[in-house]
Amino acid sequence: MDTDKTVLNVIHSRKSVRHYTEQTVSREILETLVRAGMSAPSAVNRQPWVFIAIDERQTLDELGSRLPYARMLLKTNAAIVVCGDMKKAPDEWQQEFWIQDCSAATENILIAAEAIGLGSVWTAVYPAKDRIEIVRRSLNLPDHIIPLNVLPIGFPDNIDKPKDKWNPGKLIWNKWV
Amino acid sequence: MDTDKTVLNVIHSRKSVRHYTEQTVSREILETLVRAGMSAPSAVNRQPWVFIAIDERQTLDELGSRLPYARMLLKTNAAIVVCGDMKKAPDEWQQEFWIQDCSAATENILIAAEAIGLGSVWTAVYPAKDRIEIVRRSLNLPDHIIPLNVLPIGFPDNIDKPKDKWNPGKLIWNKWV
Repeated sequence: MDTDKTVLNVIHSRKSVRHYTEQTVSREILETLVRAGMSAPSAVNRQPWVFIAIDERQTLDELGSRLPYARMLLKTNAAIVVCGDMKKAPDEWQQEFWIQDCSAATENILIAAEAIGLGSVWTAVYPAKDRIEIVRRSLNLPDHIIPLNVLPIGFPDNIDKPKDKWNPGKLIWNKWV
Repeated sequence: MDTDKTVLNVIHSRKSVRHYTEQTVSREILETLVRAGMSAPSAVNRQPWVFIAIDERQTLDELGSRLPYARMLLKTNAAIVVCGDMKKAPDEWQQEFWIQDCSAATENILIAAEAIGLGSVWTAVYPAKDRIEIVRRSLNLPDHIIPLNVLPIGFPDNIDKPKDKWNPGKLIWNKWV
């Protein structure tokens, strides 16, 4: 098994997993996923992120019942919320980058989950003000912490399949013509 | 070699590579990287991206001499520019998501590059208006295509090393306290 083929295969196998088995996701696994997130690049290495790992039933149910696109939280037993830390993005210019940095960290978590045999799905929170407020209140987040998304985590029951999104028309060589 | 360890190792080994050997990056490799990019998730699967793969000396030199943080383009022979396609993001709400979607695609490319034995570095373009204008003019980009970043691609000469960015203080369990 070659490293390049293994990794490319996992990148292409990653999918939005919305159906899970009842197997419990351990704290060890959640920490492994968050470690992958923290190894993402960030603008001038500011690492303007915080990761909330959730494994309490009550909190999962609260978020799952209030966030319309994250109802699968009601059926899984773990989630990660990727947040931007505005104290690490002190000026307006820096603040533009936390979204890019936290999105890269999110993709690391999703790829790591696929590699470990877990499934997840990126449910957007930012920039929807109502969703930000729901997550903020449920998790007691202070004002300088902005949730970008909620990632339900679970063991997939193999209903969800990856899409082939290759589109040669979206690869341009050298200059727009 | 287990899939999970292989992939996690590559995620953690990914680094900003700014020094390259003279070995040429083939179009086959560039296409492999762009395919990885296109397999990223996107909000409601809109795939609001276009990838410009550059292997012409003149274009690399033009960008490398005009973009202050992408001078390494003068010393490599390939690059990928990840762009948002505003025609795939028709309303204001959708437009908020292209940055997240294209950032996830970028991270896929960076991880794929590391897996293949290549190196790259995320040099930001958006939201800096002057940098967007430089890239737009060099690549003849129409108004609805916004460059997010420029990724120089090359074979690393092993000067650049990964950082250990694990910070247990940025992992919070369940609720902010």
